[in-house]
Amino acid sequence: MIKKLLNLRIFTDENYKMNLSLKDVNGELLLVSQFTLYANCRDGNRPDFIRAAKPEKAEELYLYIVDKCKESGTKVETGVFREHMKVSLLNEGPITIILDSEDLKKKSNK
Amino acid sequence: MIKKLLNLRIFTDENYKMNLSLKDVNGELLLVSQFTLYANCRDGNRPDFIRAAKPEKAEELYLYIVDKCKESGTKVETGVFREHMKVSLLNEGPITIILDSEDLKKKSNK
Repeated sequence: MIKKLLNLRIFTDENYKMNLSLKDVNGELLLVSQFTLYANCRDGNRPDFIRAAKPEKAEELYLYIVDKCKESGTKVETGVFREHMKVSLLNEGPITIILDSEDLKKKSNK
Repeated sequence: MIKKLLNLRIFTDENYKMNLSLKDVNGELLLVSQFTLYANCRDGNRPDFIRAAKPEKAEELYLYIVDKCKESGTKVETGVFREHMKVSLLNEGPITIILDSEDLKKKSNK
């Protein structure tokens, strides 16, 4: 997952093709923990977060990922764990790519 | 899916519980089409977008959703279909919730 995050070729080259990784463009990372991604909205209109990890476990995992990314030599900025934040962004593209660790384990059946 | 979008109780009430829907808070919508959500990153490091709909089909669906949301009386702003944009946001929370139409069809097995 971390390898994928650092090596994914999602930045455009001179021909506007997604060809370059974070390292290729000397990019930096902003890692923000986000338990609401685990919301289950299938039943009713109020999302439930039952499947999200307990905060202690989640923080341990979050800090592990931050550490591993820093080890790779990438500059990493972080959000504040469990805090309500206002994250100001200029979302260019926009591009939103979902990496699901469960999903990455399966190889595609192409 | 559209009903879910409009009725999901993701806004906090006076007790900071997610209890209120877009209508309850007199909210507005910004709908931006985003084919990169369909990226498949399982093999290698370059995402493929083979499963994303063809642009014509996608635009039809996108406009349908915009129309239906407007019909409900909600103020809707849109992005420009197929254009590269810079979307400036103040992401409060941050909260990111994924609604997958395939996934919503299945009821949870709780």
